[in-house]
Amino acid sequence: MIIVLKPHATKEQLAHVDKLVKDRGLDTHIVEGQDMTIIGCIGDTTMIDPKLFEVNEAVDKVMHVQEPYKLANRAFHPEDSIVDVSGVKIGGDHLALIAGPCSVESYEQVLEIAQAAKASGANLLRGGAFKPRTSPYAFQGLGMEGLDILCAVREATGLPVVTELMSPNYLDVFNERVDLIQIGARNMQNFDLLKQLGQVDRPILLKRGLNATYEEWIMSAEYIMASGNENVILCERGIRTFETYTRNTLDLQSIPVLKRLTHLPVVVDPSHAGGKWWLVEPMAIAAVAAGADGLMIEVHNNPECALCDGAQSLKPKKYDMVLNSIKQIAPVVGKQV
Amino acid sequence: MIIVLKPHATKEQLAHVDKLVKDRGLDTHIVEGQDMTIIGCIGDTTMIDPKLFEVNEAVDKVMHVQEPYKLANRAFHPEDSIVDVSGVKIGGDHLALIAGPCSVESYEQVLEIAQAAKASGANLLRGGAFKPRTSPYAFQGLGMEGLDILCAVREATGLPVVTELMSPNYLDVFNERVDLIQIGARNMQNFDLLKQLGQVDRPILLKRGLNATYEEWIMSAEYIMASGNENVILCERGIRTFETYTRNTLDLQSIPVLKRLTHLPVVVDPSHAGGKWWLVEPMAIAAVAAGADGLMIEVHNNPECALCDGAQSLKPKKYDMVLNSIKQIAPVVGKQV
Amino acid sequence: MIIVLKPHATKEQLAHVDKLVKDRGLDTHIVEGQDMTIIGCIGDTTMIDPKLFEVNEAVDKVMHVQEPYKLANRAFHPEDSIVDVSGVKIGGDHLALIAGPCSVESYEQVLEIAQAAKASGANLLRGGAFKPRTSPYAFQGLGMEGLDILCAVREATGLPVVTELMSPNYLDVFNERVDLIQIGARNMQNFDLLKQLGQVDRPILLKRGLNATYEEWIMSAEYIMASGNENVILCERGIRTFETYTRNTLDLQSIPVLKRLTHLPVVVDPSHAGGKWWLVEPMAIAAVAAGADGLMIEVHNNPECALCDGAQSLKPKKYDMVLNSIKQIAPVVGKQV
Amino acid sequence: MIIVLKPHATKEQLAHVDKLVKDRGLDTHIVEGQDMTIIGCIGDTTMIDPKLFEVNEAVDKVMHVQEPYKLANRAFHPEDSIVDVSGVKIGGDHLALIAGPCSVESYEQVLEIAQAAKASGANLLRGGAFKPRTSPYAFQGLGMEGLDILCAVREATGLPVVTELMSPNYLDVFNERVDLIQIGARNMQNFDLLKQLGQVDRPILLKRGLNATYEEWIMSAEYIMASGNENVILCERGIRTFETYTRNTLDLQSIPVLKRLTHLPVVVDPSHAGGKWWLVEPMAIAAVAAGADGLMIEVHNNPECALCDGAQSLKPKKYDMVLNSIKQIAPVVGKQV
Repeated sequence: MIIVLKPHATKEQLAHVDKLVKDRGLDTHIVEGQDMTIIGCIGDTTMIDPKLFEVNEAVDKVMHVQEPYKLANRAFHPEDSIVDVSGVKIGGDHLALIAGPCSVESYEQVLEIAQAAKASGANLLRGGAFKPRTSPYAFQGLGMEGLDILCAVREATGLPVVTELMSPNYLDVFNERVDLIQIGARNMQNFDLLKQLGQVDRPILLKRGLNATYEEWIMSAEYIMASGNENVILCERGIRTFETYTRNTLDLQSIPVLKRLTHLPVVVDPSHAGGKWWLVEPMAIAAVAAGADGLMIEVHNNPECALCDGAQSLKPKKYDMVLNSIKQIAPVVGKQV
Repeated sequence: MIIVLKPHATKEQLAHVDKLVKDRGLDTHIVEGQDMTIIGCIGDTTMIDPKLFEVNEAVDKVMHVQEPYKLANRAFHPEDSIVDVSGVKIGGDHLALIAGPCSVESYEQVLEIAQAAKASGANLLRGGAFKPRTSPYAFQGLGMEGLDILCAVREATGLPVVTELMSPNYLDVFNERVDLIQIGARNMQNFDLLKQLGQVDRPILLKRGLNATYEEWIMSAEYIMASGNENVILCERGIRTFETYTRNTLDLQSIPVLKRLTHLPVVVDPSHAGGKWWLVEPMAIAAVAAGADGLMIEVHNNPECALCDGAQSLKPKKYDMVLNSIKQIAPVVGKQV
Repeated sequence: MIIVLKPHATKEQLAHVDKLVKDRGLDTHIVEGQDMTIIGCIGDTTMIDPKLFEVNEAVDKVMHVQEPYKLANRAFHPEDSIVDVSGVKIGGDHLALIAGPCSVESYEQVLEIAQAAKASGANLLRGGAFKPRTSPYAFQGLGMEGLDILCAVREATGLPVVTELMSPNYLDVFNERVDLIQIGARNMQNFDLLKQLGQVDRPILLKRGLNATYEEWIMSAEYIMASGNENVILCERGIRTFETYTRNTLDLQSIPVLKRLTHLPVVVDPSHAGGKWWLVEPMAIAAVAAGADGLMIEVHNNPECALCDGAQSLKPKKYDMVLNSIKQIAPVVGKQV
Repeated sequence: MIIVLKPHATKEQLAHVDKLVKDRGLDTHIVEGQDMTIIGCIGDTTMIDPKLFEVNEAVDKVMHVQEPYKLANRAFHPEDSIVDVSGVKIGGDHLALIAGPCSVESYEQVLEIAQAAKASGANLLRGGAFKPRTSPYAFQGLGMEGLDILCAVREATGLPVVTELMSPNYLDVFNERVDLIQIGARNMQNFDLLKQLGQVDRPILLKRGLNATYEEWIMSAEYIMASGNENVILCERGIRTFETYTRNTLDLQSIPVLKRLTHLPVVVDPSHAGGKWWLVEPMAIAAVAAGADGLMIEVHNNPECALCDGAQSLKPKKYDMVLNSIKQIAPVVGKQV
């Protein structure tokens, strides 16, 4: 941490700030520049709020130089983490191909989609049982019945199941029955829920919040890891920008950035990002080309009758075409399918 | 709802989309323009997802013309709602003056701040017992002990208490002991929590999410109201933009906009928005000038030693000066202090 | 400037970076921390691009600690600058009240509006002769004819004229005939134009770009000042955010921030920011309450027939009401009307 | 265009708005819904400002259903446009591989880089002679001397030259000597300059503004096309968002979106978007995978000594590796290299 003093700070003020820093167990090193004086703080500053020093009248600004996360930090864990989801590996050169409907509607629906997706190459099944909806009047998902259906289709197809947890009330059920627990974008900073995920045995798929910086996103992973569960997979699903033609702006730069800053696998959801089915194919291919460790794609057998988000779903035939391109692109960037 | 067909949509496609709409219980009215055809959908479209129709190949876009909220909508409730917080009225020409430390640290601290703030004119006491922190390593608040302190200071000063609820686990305790339950920006779309707030007797202070549109924010209020609790107060606390000099960008346009769209009171938190104490005074005055129904301001007797967010706290003396200006400005815009 | 080295940077790498810095005429001071080494660069770093050092493999990040602007910097010019626009003072405790139609349409129109606005208290006349329009097919303004009308109305009313310059081709004409030359948001980083403004005798009203940070905005003022014209007034007119209900988000925090960082007057345009006439009154009052040195408000005698932006124009009667409130608010924040 | 009236609009108000629309030469079609009435406007609404009707008290909102651009619209020009840059084709299945230094520094520098890039497969040479810089104190480019160098290197290598035009003063020189005239992000809405580009014979590379929506960007292309020059290539270079770890957020969804809305070629600049050299490789590959018609990449033989933006430049060896990957990916998405 570096504390920059205001141009005309006095010797007394410098001494006072210096003492404040030392009182928190840090060492200091003072650099007197031409126009300003800087205090370099030496020691573990991870747990110190830089704002504390900004209050001081003599302080111009405070800058962090160390990343505030440790367990997720690649600096302390140079190899890629590979997360095992009931036998399916994600990370390293393994590509997760997660497919399924936005919402679980019926056993027949999910089964048909899952079988088709598996035939195309999918290795994980997604489907929403509990749905986060902006409107209280919109379809909220089948709930426990939806979970039963997903488990039954897992039985029939062998595909491990990914589905979203919205409430701590269902934590035990999810821990028992779901293979990969998804935390949605709107709960990325539901810190109460994050802490409880540390108690769970299952790996976590942590979606990026619509307005989360890379650092905040990693800090949310750190919450889960610090609570005891190190099996975290990050999922880029688009951020909110000024552009409204697409639902969100898919930030593929996040892939190389996160792989540099952390050792966690990074999966991309091109369906929710753009909100339009015809954006899924080019963005899915681009995500793999940019180094993603997996794709989460909505597939529906009858998008026009989907209870939710039909507009962004691929038909099974189209999904098959997308995976065909992925199979050609993946080896170029060092992934196997 | 209006469905715009693509330029070269055929008669068959038009008939197909027309049928889809009617199947959902709506009436239609078809407008054939020069270059395009439009289907006007007549009936209650609040609960229909416009995306459903966008899937259709012949559809160019779908536009909502009705607001998707009802209980919060001023169109159906033209008078200002006035919320009663244990005897303190908020809304109409009543100004809520909420003050207190970011975090509860000790009984003495809170008491001293509360007494000073009350002497200046504050009518509600704020203080964080459970703190949402970006980092798992940061101070997370005193928890239940903090709540005890707040209640004791209420006893001593008569000021009703506002504090943040982060977990459904504490719902009953908060309902029993807290006068105004705050839902933080990061939980604004924690739909599970919102639904449970409908079961509570206490009024709710709903902060705007960092990236929430007005409509999404109102929809979160609608969640609480539709679940059974109509006493909702909205709190503008800044949104995330590209500007990073300030912590967030305080959006004062939200005040007149929300007052036009809804009948709910709107309170402003200038402390969290800017993140700098010297921004609080001008922004507090401006918020009242723009028509806010209240201010939530952080006051600390020793900001330099605050356990959290000291940089944005006012000292009691400065708070007193701010309220002095407020007392002069309020009558000009029709508020009493 | 501070250069942070990567955790495992070697002695040789440190020496190499140290030399690079010294080669640019700076002194260095090395701070060896627990986990990382920092090089403090001492001397004038204003003209050094920090990215240059980021290229180096051993460098983790480079941080600027000095503001990159000088002439506009309050640190070197502690008093408020007061700009004189043909006898009307802007800055300090003087409030600029700029009013007029978005576009100049006819002599009669401008005259009627100007007379009414002056009677209400306006002291400067605005009106667009050359209009920046997103569409090549939209009305582009009356051009030179519009300028003639503005000058004629100035003759008739005594109000100095503010109007937008879009092209260097008209620089001489504007210098001769316009009292305050406005540079629009979309030209805020038209560096070629900014440099030429240094040659002009007239003061400049520099609007904030839709996505300009405070620093970039000040740097654009610095361009004009460094080229020879120190009479710059900054104009906040809203920034682009994710919120689309309003045209832009008016950032009133910019007022206290700019007054802290610079000595230049800051004027606010609430008409363009929100794009809706009913937002103008509360935002105009709020802007003055926040410390603005002036207001630029669109007034039109028949908004329904305006050739451009009628939706955000006030009728003269409403403008009169707004100024009435302003007259009551201004003294509270130390301004005279 | 669709005009939505307020819930309680009277018959007289409806008739008045209806007349206003008809006065502008449009036909109307009235749809009376359960809660609201809608006026469908039939005819060419491209040149009508929807805000005009929003002024009316009885109007709730106005929505455009037609795109406001014509010449750039794929609806009226279904085939891909292929732009010829002095013999190098861009668009269709042709990939533009533009490489070179950020700034022109010397003949030797540019020649060495151009020869290496050409050997790797580059078919166009970029280099900045006139540089748009945020700071007036930063290196502004070699100007005409830089242009001379670029032309000399074109002579030596046969690579056509791309460089940025900042001022209308140099329009004739650029038209004579530059093969592809680049308009930078900050001038994307310099409408005066855009209009003058219609007079030029050379194709234009139009960079996206940092905060430009797809529609605004296309409208800027439409400005050039409507002024007489239909040879426009669009260049995605990242947009400004809340994320500051990267310089900007590269929006690869823009590629499929623009190809759907327009017939113009779309090129991507991964160097400026991220601002970090290690982001260039994954983003360049991803851009081609997403369907880009070309890449503009900064290559420098000694990034550490570059006068500008060295941090985002690739060394020639690395550029060669990137093109190797591109050569494998391109055929999968239907492009030839």
